[in-house]
Amino acid sequence: MTPFTYAEAHAQDFVEQLKEWLRIPSISTQSELKPELERAAFWLRDHCLSIGLTRAEVFPTPRHPVVYAEWLGAGPNAPTVLVYGHYDVQPVDDPYREWKSDPFEPVEREGHLYGRGATDDKGQTFIHLKAFEAHFRATGSFPVNVKFLVEGEEESGSESLPAFIQANVDLLRADVLVISDSHIISTEQPSLVYGLRGIFTAEVEVFGPRGDLHSGSYGGTVHNPVQALVEILAQLHDAQGRVTVPGFYDDVLPLLAEDRRALAQSPMDEARLVKETGVPRPWGEPDYSIAERIGARPTLELNGIVGGWIGEGSKTVIPARALAKISCRLVPNQDPNQIFALLQQGIAALTPPTVRSEVRMIHAGGPAAMVPIDAKPIQAAVEAYEAVFGTRPLFLREGGSIPIVAGLQGALDVPVVLMGFGLPDDNLHAPNEKFTLAMFHKGIQTMLHFYQRLPALL
Amino acid sequence: MTPFTYAEAHAQDFVEQLKEWLRIPSISTQSELKPELERAAFWLRDHCLSIGLTRAEVFPTPRHPVVYAEWLGAGPNAPTVLVYGHYDVQPVDDPYREWKSDPFEPVEREGHLYGRGATDDKGQTFIHLKAFEAHFRATGSFPVNVKFLVEGEEESGSESLPAFIQANVDLLRADVLVISDSHIISTEQPSLVYGLRGIFTAEVEVFGPRGDLHSGSYGGTVHNPVQALVEILAQLHDAQGRVTVPGFYDDVLPLLAEDRRALAQSPMDEARLVKETGVPRPWGEPDYSIAERIGARPTLELNGIVGGWIGEGSKTVIPARALAKISCRLVPNQDPNQIFALLQQGIAALTPPTVRSEVRMIHAGGPAAMVPIDAKPIQAAVEAYEAVFGTRPLFLREGGSIPIVAGLQGALDVPVVLMGFGLPDDNLHAPNEKFTLAMFHKGIQTMLHFYQRLPALL
Repeated sequence: MTPFTYAEAHAQDFVEQLKEWLRIPSISTQSELKPELERAAFWLRDHCLSIGLTRAEVFPTPRHPVVYAEWLGAGPNAPTVLVYGHYDVQPVDDPYREWKSDPFEPVEREGHLYGRGATDDKGQTFIHLKAFEAHFRATGSFPVNVKFLVEGEEESGSESLPAFIQANVDLLRADVLVISDSHIISTEQPSLVYGLRGIFTAEVEVFGPRGDLHSGSYGGTVHNPVQALVEILAQLHDAQGRVTVPGFYDDVLPLLAEDRRALAQSPMDEARLVKETGVPRPWGEPDYSIAERIGARPTLELNGIVGGWIGEGSKTVIPARALAKISCRLVPNQDPNQIFALLQQGIAALTPPTVRSEVRMIHAGGPAAMVPIDAKPIQAAVEAYEAVFGTRPLFLREGGSIPIVAGLQGALDVPVVLMGFGLPDDNLHAPNEKFTLAMFHKGIQTMLHFYQRLPALL
Repeated sequence: MTPFTYAEAHAQDFVEQLKEWLRIPSISTQSELKPELERAAFWLRDHCLSIGLTRAEVFPTPRHPVVYAEWLGAGPNAPTVLVYGHYDVQPVDDPYREWKSDPFEPVEREGHLYGRGATDDKGQTFIHLKAFEAHFRATGSFPVNVKFLVEGEEESGSESLPAFIQANVDLLRADVLVISDSHIISTEQPSLVYGLRGIFTAEVEVFGPRGDLHSGSYGGTVHNPVQALVEILAQLHDAQGRVTVPGFYDDVLPLLAEDRRALAQSPMDEARLVKETGVPRPWGEPDYSIAERIGARPTLELNGIVGGWIGEGSKTVIPARALAKISCRLVPNQDPNQIFALLQQGIAALTPPTVRSEVRMIHAGGPAAMVPIDAKPIQAAVEAYEAVFGTRPLFLREGGSIPIVAGLQGALDVPVVLMGFGLPDDNLHAPNEKFTLAMFHKGIQTMLHFYQRLPALL
């Protein structure tokens, strides 16, 4: 039995094991779920040991633990691969009851596995574990030394990870860093991500009266905090969709002709955007194509807003306060802390004297990351995708963020390969997240090809 | 024993009875609480019968029942008073845990009775019942015929009441309509309300993508519905606080010199507003005084807003939709349905082609109401306040609304007397609603004086 046939023979076992992990509601942003994060970490450690990895440990951090596992049996002359993934998942708030099944009771429907974390990122992390298992169980060995670094705070800013990396540089030392936490263009067209946006998240709160007021008794004489908040937020973009926070674009490097050529290869255009999302028409900076806006331009997004009465019917209050959640996606050369400071200053300048405002960082996130696409491990990835999908992958800059990528690159001085197996319609961060099972199985096959090709190239 | 000494002797009994009624969570805007509304209505009917009223009935309506009760023992030559009140209460949403005690477990603290509905309007309605009881139990009679009309939808638009009134004009026929659902200036300075603003409530919802999107994958290319909503809402007022909805002020009558003189008597000014509310500074139309803005100018208030992630931490979504709750307070000559139509048109015109919006009426409310202050029953009210408080009441236009007042005036062709016993710091519609017990007891004394004086004046 070859590693490939082993993986085929155990395809359904692999799915059932993944379901077990998905049943643990490891939402890192909700502090009351801390025990579930620990449960997900220990489940992973035990699973690593069960498939032949020789060491697996749960390292505590100030928030959620990091799981480290390794198999170094390929010997000191073989290359070492560090696989990064995360076992935490996005929240599942569902005010409109859109989830068709329990987010933490994964179910298969029409070739897809539905559940929170199915693709982001438990499912994609699992691909690497199953590639290792298939090879190791079929042959008793693995082509490279392999280390796993799986964290529990990716969806909430990866705040504990930089210190862990700094304290464990030797433990994590590797020749290549592989991450599967992104998507390809379609089941027929693979792609390799060579750029990720940076990110930070913040919240702005506006305070007016010391308590809620009756809108009849006081309406017309005090600045309603909901109104003041919307007036502030409405001034953060101009009519063309440009961010108006002073200094926001100062450090953005001009888009080079080669970047524009690469981004022009993306299949994402206005028609595809409208089809995928259902919006009446696209929006955003008119000087940039859709693919450029996603991959190469910074954004300021309002992820949430709340204030006053939000239940059924009406309640005639002037609320005491109102709050909005903001995230900024950043491009290379933009520093998250500096942009956050600009946002603070910008909102302070927009706040009228009739209310008080506060801007608070939620997660400091991380800067954008770029991958040199001529690195040798990239060649292995190209060949691996081609072997399984029958066509060469396109190179894309993605709009998403993996906050720690730039930090890992810097601390370990290691080339990064971003090999995604998600699809654009996987409903990441949204209701009905799914992983197309064909992609899960193709992912395992692709990674087997990748790991087999790597020693000859490095 | 006189009616006055009876009321004094039974003061604590009256408070304990009121507490029983306050324990029923009769929030009319929350449809799942319908059984509690019925419980509150039947409690009231039984209580009416227990204090000597000769008839008390619960009339079903399409939503919450109306309670009617009467005592007509004064005979056909005595005047008949119709008392209007409401047994429904405001919601108690409490995201910041500001209620110091259970809103539906009323408690006395430092001379105040805390609980939802304590003053608005179970407590103030109860004043009339207790005035009747005190007089009837002490003397075996009452100076006037009395009818009670107590509805269950005042806090949610009084939608069922107009049809009930039309169908029961003869039943409700009276010489004077008395309502206690407002406040006076202070424990030392009584006031009589001669104007109430009209009201309607509505909600606006903005729709973008068909489902929530990952803000990394799509950020910068679709118009975020939260952003589009705040951009629309921010355009509903100008920098001076004027409502910019086209046509909004078209039917507003100019403020007459006599109105301005009357409103100038109000103790409400900038200093008092800041002290009462804690806002950094006042806000609103600069051409009008604080008392004029409250009593004589229409408003458009954002009572609530919600969209996207509003929990702990962050969630990097572009939400599929966002919603705001709006109420407009109206002045005489403004028609709620017409102003609602203007709001719909205004928001449609402000909605960019990148999203879709809907404006829906929540409660059609009612128009503003004005009371002729030279009517005879007003004289009885002035004397009654003076007898108990030792000083003549000021005449004020209030900013609040009792949607049905204009409808009752019109259908029954009857003079209205608005005799409030609340205080400005009663936290109406807000956490920690209270009724100052001294005001409850003074209210009963005042109403006894009023009812005794009425026959000589009419």
